[in-house]
Amino acid sequence: MTTEFEIIRRHFTRQARTAALGVGDDAALLRPRAGSTLAVTTDMLLAGRHFFADADPESLGHKALAVNLSDLAAMGAVPRWALLSIALPRADERWLAAFSRGLFRLARRFGTELIGGDTTRGPLAISITAIGEVPEKLALRRDAARAGDDVWLSGATGEAALGLAHLRGRVRLRGSAREACLRRLHAPEPRVALGRSLRGIARSAIDVSDGLLADLGHVAEASRVAAELRWEDLPRARAIAECGSAALARDCLLAGGDDYELAFTAPVSARPRILAAGKKSRVRVTRIGSILKGRPEVRVRDARARVVAAPRAGFDHFA
Amino acid sequence: MTTEFEIIRRHFTRQARTAALGVGDDAALLRPRAGSTLAVTTDMLLAGRHFFADADPESLGHKALAVNLSDLAAMGAVPRWALLSIALPRADERWLAAFSRGLFRLARRFGTELIGGDTTRGPLAISITAIGEVPEKLALRRDAARAGDDVWLSGATGEAALGLAHLRGRVRLRGSAREACLRRLHAPEPRVALGRSLRGIARSAIDVSDGLLADLGHVAEASRVAAELRWEDLPRARAIAECGSAALARDCLLAGGDDYELAFTAPVSARPRILAAGKKSRVRVTRIGSILKGRPEVRVRDARARVVAAPRAGFDHFA
Repeated sequence: MTTEFEIIRRHFTRQARTAALGVGDDAALLRPRAGSTLAVTTDMLLAGRHFFADADPESLGHKALAVNLSDLAAMGAVPRWALLSIALPRADERWLAAFSRGLFRLARRFGTELIGGDTTRGPLAISITAIGEVPEKLALRRDAARAGDDVWLSGATGEAALGLAHLRGRVRLRGSAREACLRRLHAPEPRVALGRSLRGIARSAIDVSDGLLADLGHVAEASRVAAELRWEDLPRARAIAECGSAALARDCLLAGGDDYELAFTAPVSARPRILAAGKKSRVRVTRIGSILKGRPEVRVRDARARVVAAPRAGFDHFA
Repeated sequence: MTTEFEIIRRHFTRQARTAALGVGDDAALLRPRAGSTLAVTTDMLLAGRHFFADADPESLGHKALAVNLSDLAAMGAVPRWALLSIALPRADERWLAAFSRGLFRLARRFGTELIGGDTTRGPLAISITAIGEVPEKLALRRDAARAGDDVWLSGATGEAALGLAHLRGRVRLRGSAREACLRRLHAPEPRVALGRSLRGIARSAIDVSDGLLADLGHVAEASRVAAELRWEDLPRARAIAECGSAALARDCLLAGGDDYELAFTAPVSARPRILAAGKKSRVRVTRIGSILKGRPEVRVRDARARVVAAPRAGFDHFA
């Protein structure tokens, strides 16, 4: 019979490399680099809400960590450590092996060490806390956008939401479009290298997890500015452009969620450096709008200056 | 209608005092003290498993944080920051107000700042990560017990388990005994001051959350030593002594769990300093046994050297 401690030992314990003390004591011990500021974030994923209960465990291990690394990326922080709390309906060895494989593969790629956690029995739930480092003055906060800034976006939004619409039978994707959208949904790529490259260049940043409009709305609120996006300039993945429904495409682009791209603002003078940061990080970066004075809100206008009807706001768990 | 952001703003946001950036961005920003080592721990509590779904929310807010502070105390760390992930079946304002009151009251007492988290809808689940500081060489680890050490215990074990037995109808407690046991179950007091006082004095420590024998078993395993406890020396709260069932009393004392006391080991020469640390921290400390060479195990012997039958091992969520 598999005990709680065997689960931890077999699936969630790796030799501590950078931590002074890793998994297995009352707490882990970390030595932050001298003078560094820590960025700390946490996300909880529940079966039936954030993922299907029968989701592929390897993807789930990847995604549970990726959404936290995305938050660190949006601060310009470099991930270092993570803690995993997990409730499992049963001790399923194959499930656990696949889940931990997905988690550790991503962790290794980003030099992130799993240093602790908690394992319990219950309806499948995953809560990860990730800890990174960033020089305090270079952290990319939400409250630092200024009128006159450009608004930028990494990659493109909408594919994950389109993949979800496919799984829910609202649209039928095929071939490479289907593959691309499901990959975006199940295995998002946190923009860690880009976030780090934007330190000292971008003024503010946020990761797009609840939909582009909603998340830029948080930047607008925190910075007390308005944002205006140019509809035609929004980057569109091929699957979005070809999905066959203009309304669905618009909803996915502007309010889809689960994108894990970075939306950020920077002064006009920073354009060449931002393009260089994107190139260095191998992520497309696109100017999609401007920050303006005015009431905190996000508007989208087309080339004829008409306001593109804003779809519903970002995802709200209690709406 | 209450949105996710209103829940966070109303119930879980306080002005950041020690954090460089608190609730409300992609990640919080912390400045550890120069040269300090961070102790980090996380615990997940699920309704129906770790607490009754109709548990008093104020106690629950207290307990969810207390169990994490107890882990920090067992490292000799001083708590500084916490993150809260919570899944809620609905946005119940009164419940949230009481929960956050219980959580913040305890946090304030220990100078702990809530710096971030995640709020989602789902079956009631609470995951807290707590971060403290401790000079690395003084951290009280599990793997440092040595043959010849005394084994010590703060307070007394068993009352929380007896309180749970009462709630489950296995025993009928009355008056002050009932009150004491339910208080221990619902509002455990993390031994933060004692843990800190034991720095440089105790050699190893653990917090007793899964039962005294099971948790001392972790110390024995990690330190590759045996522990022998003296049955008559185990401190007994009045409710335990008077519960009317010797078997229940023994199970509660040795394997009850939810005690959140500190079990620790120290060289014989440290006795006066440990008594002084207990006095200073206003917690009774009792010598309950010795660390011996030998196979990692925990034995309990009575005054005539007979082995007191060991009750079932500590709680295992997958056993």
